[in-house]
Amino acid sequence: MQKNGPAAAMDIETFSQAITSGDRRALSRAITLIESSRADHREQAVQLIEYLKTANRQAIRIGLSGTPGVGKSTFIESFGKMLTGQGLKVAVLAVDPSSARSGGSILGDKTRMEELSRDPNAFIRPSPSRSHLGGVARRTREAVSLCEAAGFDVVLIETVGVGQSETVVAEISDVFVLLLAPAGGDELQGVKRGIMEIADIILVNKADGDLKPAATRTCSDYAGALRLLRKRPQDPEGFPKAMMVSAMQQEGLQTAWSEMTSLIGWRRDNGFFDARREDQARYWFEQEVRNGLLAQLDTPQARAMMQDYASRVAQGAITPTVAAQDLLLGLQEQT
Amino acid sequence: MQKNGPAAAMDIETFSQAITSGDRRALSRAITLIESSRADHREQAVQLIEYLKTANRQAIRIGLSGTPGVGKSTFIESFGKMLTGQGLKVAVLAVDPSSARSGGSILGDKTRMEELSRDPNAFIRPSPSRSHLGGVARRTREAVSLCEAAGFDVVLIETVGVGQSETVVAEISDVFVLLLAPAGGDELQGVKRGIMEIADIILVNKADGDLKPAATRTCSDYAGALRLLRKRPQDPEGFPKAMMVSAMQQEGLQTAWSEMTSLIGWRRDNGFFDARREDQARYWFEQEVRNGLLAQLDTPQARAMMQDYASRVAQGAITPTVAAQDLLLGLQEQT
Repeated sequence: MQKNGPAAAMDIETFSQAITSGDRRALSRAITLIESSRADHREQAVQLIEYLKTANRQAIRIGLSGTPGVGKSTFIESFGKMLTGQGLKVAVLAVDPSSARSGGSILGDKTRMEELSRDPNAFIRPSPSRSHLGGVARRTREAVSLCEAAGFDVVLIETVGVGQSETVVAEISDVFVLLLAPAGGDELQGVKRGIMEIADIILVNKADGDLKPAATRTCSDYAGALRLLRKRPQDPEGFPKAMMVSAMQQEGLQTAWSEMTSLIGWRRDNGFFDARREDQARYWFEQEVRNGLLAQLDTPQARAMMQDYASRVAQGAITPTVAAQDLLLGLQEQT
Repeated sequence: MQKNGPAAAMDIETFSQAITSGDRRALSRAITLIESSRADHREQAVQLIEYLKTANRQAIRIGLSGTPGVGKSTFIESFGKMLTGQGLKVAVLAVDPSSARSGGSILGDKTRMEELSRDPNAFIRPSPSRSHLGGVARRTREAVSLCEAAGFDVVLIETVGVGQSETVVAEISDVFVLLLAPAGGDELQGVKRGIMEIADIILVNKADGDLKPAATRTCSDYAGALRLLRKRPQDPEGFPKAMMVSAMQQEGLQTAWSEMTSLIGWRRDNGFFDARREDQARYWFEQEVRNGLLAQLDTPQARAMMQDYASRVAQGAITPTVAAQDLLLGLQEQT
């Protein structure tokens, strides 16, 4: 058997039982399998996931976004340890569509979360080096369902928020948390536009020592900004909310967790929890269908044609409508 | 010749000359032509727009969004009158994907802008009753280019902000303006999530009489919220910005116009104006290509299949990936 590699000839039933009984090497191998793009691996992966659905287990899925420097690793380490200390099993996955470009991957260096990575109740899986967002999204969805089948209570899905990755994470999570660092009055321009749209909870980290006053101010600024946005039906009174934590001092983490579970509890009671998961499943189905159709544009010839028309459109030599008509005719003729 | 209807047999050259010489009945007829979905009309519309490109005229395109009640009609009336008073020619178009549903259309009642609609230097065109956003987007882009060829200096593109209509308007405009009403401390939840992402200027209207203190507070709240967002490369220092106006008292309108022209001037000087128009042309080309491919899902059979799979996916009976594969195979077999 290859170390961490997908098994050559796999007995799905035995493999599934190993995963559901908590064998983390089996879980690692399963994630490697779903990350493979080989056709036979894909087929096995689909079978495995189908089989594991019978385990019928559900975790709380928490999406977590934060740019480098906000203390995300320290937060995951402290928050994860707190949860495992309460007897919960915690899995951490990363969504990083940029990792192929940067050569590295977030969470790749497990020493960033040294204690948590040695914790028997925690499982940390770095992002694979793959750049295609559609592939990353599918891999993450499948990895989440593997972790749920393996009996994890909480799955943390981390992203640095490059491009559309926050949308991917939000469409996989039950709760979306944005981690921020304190900032001075004039530096408060760090939040990516659109993120407020999907955040359920904003945590201002580093609310300790010298930074505490700045954290307090930042938190109140964001609380004010959140109040300017329209209330969403899936939110109880007071959400989305901004709070302070200190991952280093391990302060505010229990309160943050209580807010998350209370939000989830409210959504469960009001039917929004299941409705959201159903909407997410529909969303991913539609995305896969659309991606399948749009894959016709993903050939070298189609890309060359697109580029050619696009530059003529940009120059004003042809209208977008006519260019699109011509291109679609050209695509049809190729097939 | 039909009144306001597309001509049966049309001489493109004569028609074009009528439009570029400022014949507003010809302009109206041309917009009716581009709104038609009849194949022969479509062909004539494409020819006409091609022909009019030779006029090589450019207007300032201002996108304007605001929910009912913020005083949008009064603003357009006052702002439009101010511009025509300065010798500028102003066209007003509406983007309203909801009009087919509601039965009416925004701007439909020209008495809402009584003075402006009688102004020889103004042209007001209501949104057609059509619900498909792709169609509305194309119609609006084409109507904008007709108004530019007709020699208008400013084209105001109005939307109530239903669904994705703000994105459509933002991708057609040079400047995007959000109009708001003053609100009390606890009522400040009216701004659609995501709108801050695209607004260049937020105008708090009704800054007059009793509402002035509330307007001042609202304006400063939004100014604060805008500072929390990351600065965009296409913005000079201080943008996006929040300002107060009173459309009724005609106060602040000249300042608002100066801010718009100064923003546009800066973008022109720094290459962002042309770059944005080129990006928009590319964007619409890609949208038309994508819509063309995705039109395969727009048949009764495809919709029925989609619905069937989507509900099984939502129930958890099948994974999104497998459902999508099956559906795409089914689509292929049909053709």
